[in-house]
Amino acid sequence: MIKRIKIVVIGFGSIGRALAKVIALKRKTINNKYGILIDVVGVVDSKGMALKADGFDEYELLKLCEVPRSGVNLFKPYAYQGVDLDVLYNSTQPDVHIELTPSEYSSGEPGISNIIYAINRGVHVVTANKAPLVLKYREIMSSALSKGVEIRFRATVLGGTPFIDTLMSLRSHDIERIEGILNATSNFILTEMHEKLVDFNEALRMAQALGVAEANPTLDVDGVDAAAKMVIISNILEKPLKIEEIYRESISRVTLRDIIDAVRQGYIIKSITFFDVRGGKASIKIVKIPKSDLFAQINGIMNGVRIRSDATEIVFIGRGGGGIETAHSILDDVISIALHYS
Amino acid sequence: MIKRIKIVVIGFGSIGRALAKVIALKRKTINNKYGILIDVVGVVDSKGMALKADGFDEYELLKLCEVPRSGVNLFKPYAYQGVDLDVLYNSTQPDVHIELTPSEYSSGEPGISNIIYAINRGVHVVTANKAPLVLKYREIMSSALSKGVEIRFRATVLGGTPFIDTLMSLRSHDIERIEGILNATSNFILTEMHEKLVDFNEALRMAQALGVAEANPTLDVDGVDAAAKMVIISNILEKPLKIEEIYRESISRVTLRDIIDAVRQGYIIKSITFFDVRGGKASIKIVKIPKSDLFAQINGIMNGVRIRSDATEIVFIGRGGGGIETAHSILDDVISIALHYS
Repeated sequence: MIKRIKIVVIGFGSIGRALAKVIALKRKTINNKYGILIDVVGVVDSKGMALKADGFDEYELLKLCEVPRSGVNLFKPYAYQGVDLDVLYNSTQPDVHIELTPSEYSSGEPGISNIIYAINRGVHVVTANKAPLVLKYREIMSSALSKGVEIRFRATVLGGTPFIDTLMSLRSHDIERIEGILNATSNFILTEMHEKLVDFNEALRMAQALGVAEANPTLDVDGVDAAAKMVIISNILEKPLKIEEIYRESISRVTLRDIIDAVRQGYIIKSITFFDVRGGKASIKIVKIPKSDLFAQINGIMNGVRIRSDATEIVFIGRGGGGIETAHSILDDVISIALHYS
Repeated sequence: MIKRIKIVVIGFGSIGRALAKVIALKRKTINNKYGILIDVVGVVDSKGMALKADGFDEYELLKLCEVPRSGVNLFKPYAYQGVDLDVLYNSTQPDVHIELTPSEYSSGEPGISNIIYAINRGVHVVTANKAPLVLKYREIMSSALSKGVEIRFRATVLGGTPFIDTLMSLRSHDIERIEGILNATSNFILTEMHEKLVDFNEALRMAQALGVAEANPTLDVDGVDAAAKMVIISNILEKPLKIEEIYRESISRVTLRDIIDAVRQGYIIKSITFFDVRGGKASIKIVKIPKSDLFAQINGIMNGVRIRSDATEIVFIGRGGGGIETAHSILDDVISIALHYS
């Protein structure tokens, strides 16, 4: 028996478009493999919506990816001017809400309101937007529980990997310590500084030229993004931290001199986020690590996490993000929900 | 509401005892955290059984670990002479069957018969014994499906980590290639050869002295254990291999000369199991890898796997086994089953 899963995608930037492409390419395979047919019934951006209650076909999904930014309201004949979740939900009756609005850490909006709306409508949520979880993890999880819906967020930490699920699955372990290279942009910049012996500003410019860093790189470079990820991890481990409690050192203060001195002594410099789970304290520090340390091999846009429990130690390495990688993590979450509720 | 999960443990060597100890130490915590009370109602070894329908308490579990090998039939007043699964099941009515008999790759017994028995009685199975999955994966999974029971086997590959679940969770990915350092004993021996510049026989003796290698090390050293693990992986990926189809090179043929030559050229020697998923071919090869490769940092009893899919690449590193580590993986499986069916 084939189960049809109707999804709405809120936010249609690079990740939303990657998701639409991957669904267009893989929905038939996923249907054959799991008996689940994923139908995108609505796509929303800041200015409007594109709605089709019986689901966009593969061709339409690819065409949707070609509309200009904030232009889904141009996608005729499915276009709708302005954003109205009541209209979206009433006309499409979604099963899963995919929240891809940008992470905004002061208010958490529009992510928080959107997710709460979905929960109240009894709709499962997959989010790549970290801010709602960083600011309102408990509230979101407890209202999801009371409404019987699932919240999945594999894309939020080590977005190109199933790290979140792996961490959650260590149920019998007492997790003592987490150490992570959690921000791909910072790690890329530090790697460039080591490999090309350039200073921070030059490495940042290269990262920006390659699209690895944004025009305003503050969230990445100053550790806000890494701190946000550790807040999510801390909530999973039921030792919730607030983002402002995490001490942060910015990689912008690392000089080429620091790099050269470290290398001469047999070390390399990394930005590592530490979480002492028992002590309930986290910090992002610029540290010298031996070249033989596993973390010294995690370079460029790769991320990694070391999990130490009372029973074992695991290191998990993979891409932090990237459109296609993150799209797969979102899709894995959708499939998990579909399998769980079928 | 507290859910009681009654388990029987078949096989009571080092892993069974580690499991009994971890349950004794953690059952209260697990109960508080998940509302699941794990009761060990039966323990079986080659000569007899110890049965207690309302569950051994913490003290009894620790005492059970002190009986001599193959001596649970001495554990009065709960002792039963001889092994009889009908008696075990009828008197204890278990929810989960933990299969810890040794992996025996020619017949798969007694693991296969035990697991099939559990399935036919409608009892979920957690196995650390690889042989039944290596020889009868499809048959076991399809009868489990038809009986509505779950088979979990996190302990079989990278036993101290949740690798199996991580691999399974990559549902939207097309897995193209798997490379692994899958056998802790072989990796330990090769690491000793590099670090102490000793030959294979001396490194093997050290491994045996430390309990890392068995008296008869063939299964580990010749790659049978690693091949068995890759057979399980291949079944998960629905590209099933037979163990005899996997070409194997033994680490016993690596000379100290090979090691020295490799190091001089900037390489190290590892035994790596490769699986070309699309091509459907696997092999275990002795290879020279650059010192900068992540796998060069996986030393001693550590294991690691690199998963390459059409969308991403993930490296997973952790302990291959060890009693306490494996016991936690088994317990994680039990908790997963309990949560799934509550």
